[in-house]
Formats: sequence, structure tokens, C-alpha cells
Amino acid sequence: MSLIVQKFGGTSVANTERIFNVADIVTKTYAAGNDVVVVVSAQGDTTDEFIEKANAINPHASKREMDMLLTAGEQISASLLAMAIEKLGYPVVSLLGWQAGFQTPSAYGSARIKKVKADRIQKEIDKKNIVIVTGFQGINRYGDMTTLGRGGSDTSAVAIAATMHADLCQIYTDVDGVYTADPRKVPNAKKLNVISYDEMLELATLGAQVLNNRSVEMAKKYNIELEVISSLTRQPGTIVKEEAKMEKMLISGVAKDNDVARVSIIGVPDKPGLAFKIFSKLAAKKVNVDIILQSVGRDNTKDIAFTVPQNMLEEAKSAVDEYARVIGAQNVVYDPDVCKVSIVGAGMETHPGVAAEMFEALFEANINIQMISTSEIKVSVLLAREDADSAVTAIHNKFFGTND
Amino acid sequence: MSLIVQKFGGTSVANTERIFNVADIVTKTYAAGNDVVVVVSAQGDTTDEFIEKANAINPHASKREMDMLLTAGEQISASLLAMAIEKLGYPVVSLLGWQAGFQTPSAYGSARIKKVKADRIQKEIDKKNIVIVTGFQGINRYGDMTTLGRGGSDTSAVAIAATMHADLCQIYTDVDGVYTADPRKVPNAKKLNVISYDEMLELATLGAQVLNNRSVEMAKKYNIELEVISSLTRQPGTIVKEEAKMEKMLISGVAKDNDVARVSIIGVPDKPGLAFKIFSKLAAKKVNVDIILQSVGRDNTKDIAFTVPQNMLEEAKSAVDEYARVIGAQNVVYDPDVCKVSIVGAGMETHPGVAAEMFEALFEANINIQMISTSEIKVSVLLAREDADSAVTAIHNKFFGTND
Repeated sequence: MSLIVQKFGGTSVANTERIFNVADIVTKTYAAGNDVVVVVSAQGDTTDEFIEKANAINPHASKREMDMLLTAGEQISASLLAMAIEKLGYPVVSLLGWQAGFQTPSAYGSARIKKVKADRIQKEIDKKNIVIVTGFQGINRYGDMTTLGRGGSDTSAVAIAATMHADLCQIYTDVDGVYTADPRKVPNAKKLNVISYDEMLELATLGAQVLNNRSVEMAKKYNIELEVISSLTRQPGTIVKEEAKMEKMLISGVAKDNDVARVSIIGVPDKPGLAFKIFSKLAAKKVNVDIILQSVGRDNTKDIAFTVPQNMLEEAKSAVDEYARVIGAQNVVYDPDVCKVSIVGAGMETHPGVAAEMFEALFEANINIQMISTSEIKVSVLLAREDADSAVTAIHNKFFGTND
Repeated sequence: MSLIVQKFGGTSVANTERIFNVADIVTKTYAAGNDVVVVVSAQGDTTDEFIEKANAINPHASKREMDMLLTAGEQISASLLAMAIEKLGYPVVSLLGWQAGFQTPSAYGSARIKKVKADRIQKEIDKKNIVIVTGFQGINRYGDMTTLGRGGSDTSAVAIAATMHADLCQIYTDVDGVYTADPRKVPNAKKLNVISYDEMLELATLGAQVLNNRSVEMAKKYNIELEVISSLTRQPGTIVKEEAKMEKMLISGVAKDNDVARVSIIGVPDKPGLAFKIFSKLAAKKVNVDIILQSVGRDNTKDIAFTVPQNMLEEAKSAVDEYARVIGAQNVVYDPDVCKVSIVGAGMETHPGVAAEMFEALFEANINIQMISTSEIKVSVLLAREDADSAVTAIHNKFFGTND
């Protein structure tokens, strides 16, 4: 008998028909003799609808109250799924994040999981119940609701799998696996049967949006085997694990991330410590900085450019404008219309020409590169957003050919 | 400085505009130097929509999961109201039933409040926060969500008022007070400035639906002064208190209750204890029995008729059909199309002719009375539902005249 954690995203539980589809998957897994813990997101667009409702009332509502509102979303989907499973005649119980023991710090809206105190889940499993847990949420030490940030339900699932030593953690979604590029944009994209944590991590970080990056980090840390699988087709998906037998491909995928904005501080006086301080100030405002580029500069000044997530741009501005004035920088330029395109592949560690090949593809497609960032298994470039799709296609064709 | 509890029903928070109206009432009360605890129901038809959604999935869903679903409703309205109050620049915090310390037994769907452990509410008041509490809900000793049943938010408000020794408990609703009859049906119905707990209790029990009956019982027990008031007009409403100066009226109101169904067991053998047993069986199924009528009978048999709430009819059937067969009763008749019409008034204690006057009004309107029930300050009759409105009008005209 195995313990299987199954996570279902908002699309998978968007309506009654889909909920019964999920109930069918869950109960079949249970009927095959497994213990099953199910993690659900809020239905369809519920979270977005809640945010819209809140914005209509107060666009600057406190994050505490926002979390209070948003956590209702999974509560609804979890209880409805429980009712569907009851209808199919199986024993089931739904638990909220705090009931399931998800302890987090107070960072409303973007809390990390400190600990899963899984006593209640275990007790329900011992009673032979299918256990449904609301993803994305936890409780802080004041007894208040917190959320893990968008996509946090994946992390919830992996955290349960890690805490309870699950045998498999299936992430059901509306795509049937991890592809070499977005299959909606690149028709000859190929599905991967297996991928390593590190490659998946780079892809997730880069906006492939198949898996939440924190969930992959956690799966890697606790060596939890993940499966990305479609709740609709139910075909075998893509396995994410440590010792992935690489399919001898130079790169495993091309990914695009539109959730990025560029900040350029022009003419920063060339004194030691100034660059460091600006990033401290951004960190204090919890702005995640991604690609950083510092020019050699001229006239004893240099230019510093970096990218931040779209939704952090306002907070970045509030930190940067003031600071640029204080240190006497010449100008600050913000560009929200950029895109990060990346290639990922363990193969590139031993093939130094990969980055050059990517740049060549972009050159041939007449696409201008604004910034470049590399890691052992990843090369990312920042482009104008209007070039993003043609860049992905050009790069994909370069590495995977135009035909299957 | 006073402590004021203000309860707002679903209509009062149905949309953004109404939420800001409530936020305005609350913050004005706070700005006047009062501590304020606000109890909210779910927005508009949220609860009904949830029930519909649940029924589409599983009409026989467990009550535990139903409560898990329904409690999300007040969570949404409470957090949205908090955001509106934040927008107006006042300190506020929203608390769920369990955070606010509402402890209940496990009776999902119809839990009673065992205790309000109001530490958290007090702590937030001490911090000078306006405290919003989700009505209608609590937590049982297993740490699971419970609901108090429909209309339970009134009870939540009174329970807080009682626990915290509030100076006033205002029940904001979409009517501007308690009337001598439903003003939507009886144009010359009069608003009462003040009414006693007992009269209000009879009116609430009888389906006047202005206040939940449990809330009035509790207010009476702890001597909490209630005010029924409109959140829209904000005019002084009706005060409910112990030593109500009666306005020298014979009766204070005519009420109609459609949430009633009649069960008649025909030809019950005339043996001692049979009647008692059927009501024990109904009690075991938690079916509330209201008016009971036992005929003198003939041929050594008698007829027993009683009323139950509409939504209990199925459960009543399952108890009665079996029992009627076992004891050899001749027949059981169910009539869901009935209505209870009642008059209430402390004045009738000293005026024995009141019931007769009511029956006369019905006779003159050619309306057939199926059953009669009386108490010190109330007379109820059961009628065919189609006669209900004309019965109310006829009785109201009899006691209050056709013109103001």
C-alpha cells in the first residue's frame, strides 16, 4: 500500500463535471488500495474574482484581510470535492490549511511553509478516509490565515508528501506534461517523459508555469518523485526526479516569462557600495530581483539594470526613485514591456556552444537582446515583449528542428 | 464609552455600495467613541448559491462538508467589509467564528453556541480595532467548522453582546423595525417603537422573520437590549427589551409562517403511550414538532395531527410511515401546502376575547381553520397556504382597522 498525494489545480475543479472527474481519479486511486491525500486549489477563476471584488472596494487592502478573503476559495472547492466523493460512496473528509497543520510565518500573501504538523491528516488516514486539504494556505502564530502566494498549492502538496513520506506526488493540471516549449505556441514542441529537478526548477523559475518553483525546490530537497499529469487525458505525464535518465538532448526546453519588468538606473556615481545598497533597499521591500546587469560605464558613472516581477514594479519604483535621487544618479528608466526567454538543459554543462547557438537563432530572427543571464544549465535573455513568441519559435527550431 | 455590537444581514452587505454603507455606519459609531464589534452574514444570496452548487453535486452531502462550504460565505463578506473600513482609514480586523471563540457542539448545520471565549475579540478591542466577526458559525471540539443554522448570525451577535456585556446590540436588516404585520402585504401595518422579548419571541417563532428566535431567547436570558434597525434608512428602529412600555394595543402583530407542513396520522388505536412514542421517534430524528392536535376519535381509534418545518418533512415521513405501520394506524396524510398565521400580544393575557375575534375575522373572510394552538400571548391557526395572505389582512384589519 502506498501513500499518494494528488494535487488538482483550479482548472481541474472548475465546475461540477470537472469535480466529478477529479473525484473519479481520486477514488480509483483509493480503490486500488492506496492512502490518498488530495490538495486542491480554488475553482477556476475564483481567486481572480476575489481579487477583483477586493480591488473594487480597496485596491490597497491589507494583506491580512486579502488572505482572509482568498482562503475562502479553496474552502469552497475542497468541500465541493468532498461532497462529490461522498456521492461516489467513499469515506472522505476535507481539511482547511490550518486544520491540516500548515504553519507559516506572518508574511501574508507570500508565506512560506514552516512546518506541516500532519497529526490530523494522519488520524483521518488511519480512519481510512480520503483526505482533502486546501492548498495555498496556512496559519501563522497569531492564529490568522495566511496564503503561500500564487501557485502555492503545488508547494502545499509537496510539503505534505515530504512530511508524510509519500511514495508519489502527482500534480494534476490542464497540460499533460512538461514540453520542450509551450505547445500552444510552438507546434512541434515535444513532451518529456522525465526531467531532473534542476531542469524543472529552471523551467519553473523561468515562467514555464507548469510547476511552482518552490514546490520543485522542496521536492528536490526531500527527494519526492513528482508527476506532472493531465486530469483530463489521464495519460502518463512527465516524471520529475533526481536521477532522471536524460534523453540525450542538449536542452530540455525553451521557456518564456512575461511576468518581468526592467529597471535601469542610468549614471550611478562610481563609488563602492552604491550598487549593494540599492539591492538591500529592494530586499527590504521584498522585491525579488532577477537578472542584474552592470555596465562598465563612462565619466565615472555606471549604469545598473535589473528585472523585477511585474507586480513588484510599483514597490521597486518607490525604493529606486528616492535612492537614485539621494545618490545623484542621472536617470531611472522603467520598462514593463519586456520578456525573459530561456533555454534549460543539463546537457549544456558539457557543451559550451549552447548559448552561442541561442544567440545565433535570435540574430537570424532579427531580435534584439537587452540583457543576458546564465547558470550551469540555463541561458536567459531579456527581450522586448513583442519579440517573445518569435524568439521562442526561433530558438526551438534551432535546437529541435522544424519538424518532428 | 460604550460597547456596541452591530449585526448586518446578507442584504446589508450584498454589494460594494452596501458594504461601504455598512462601513460608514460602523466607523461613525466608532468615531463617536464606542468600541464596536460587527457581526456579518454572508453576502446577499451567497449561502443559497452555495447550497445550489452543493445540491448539483450531491443532494445528500454530509452536513460536515456542507458547513465547511457555507462558512466560506461569511469569511468573504467579513474580509470585504474589513477592506472597506480600512479604505475609510479606520483600524479593523476580521475574525472567523473559531478565531472569535465560538465553541459549539458537533451538530453540523444546526449547532448551538456553547460558549464564546472572547479573548481574541477583547484583545483586538484593547488595540482599538473595530472587530468584525463572521456570524452563523463556530467550531466543535474536533476542530471542525459548524454552522448555527439559518438566521444564526443574529444569535452570534447576541452571544457576543451577552459575553462581553455590551451596552446595545443592533440588528441591522432590510426592514426598519418590527411591524404589526408584514408591511409588504398589509399596507396599513404599523411600526412598533418598542416590544417585549416575549412578544418578539412569539413573532420570531411564528415566521415574522425579523429576528432569529434563538437570538431573542438569548437576549431575554442575558437582558441584552436589542434594536431592529434598517441599514438603509438608518431611522430609529424597534427596541426589544424586558420592560417594554406597551403601547396599549391588544395585540402587537400578525405573523405568517409558510415554513410548515402538516402530518396527520389517521386511525391510531386508542392505547396509552402511542402518541408519546411517535413524538419520541420524531425527537430522535431532531424533527421539531409545533402545533399538535389529537382528535377524540371513534371506533376506539383517534387521529393525531401535527406540524413540522418544511425541510423536516422527509425526515418526519421516514419516522412516521414505519411507526404508523407498526402500530396499525389506518392512514397517514401529509400536507405541505399549509401556513401558520398567528397573532401576538401581551395584551391578550387580560382580554380573553382576542382569540374569538381572530376566528371571527377568518370566518368573515370565509377561511377554513385546520388547527389551532394558543399560548398566553399568542394564538396560531393553521390554514391552507393559498388563504394565508388574505387571512393576515383580514385579521390585521380586524384589530388595527383598515385605515391609519
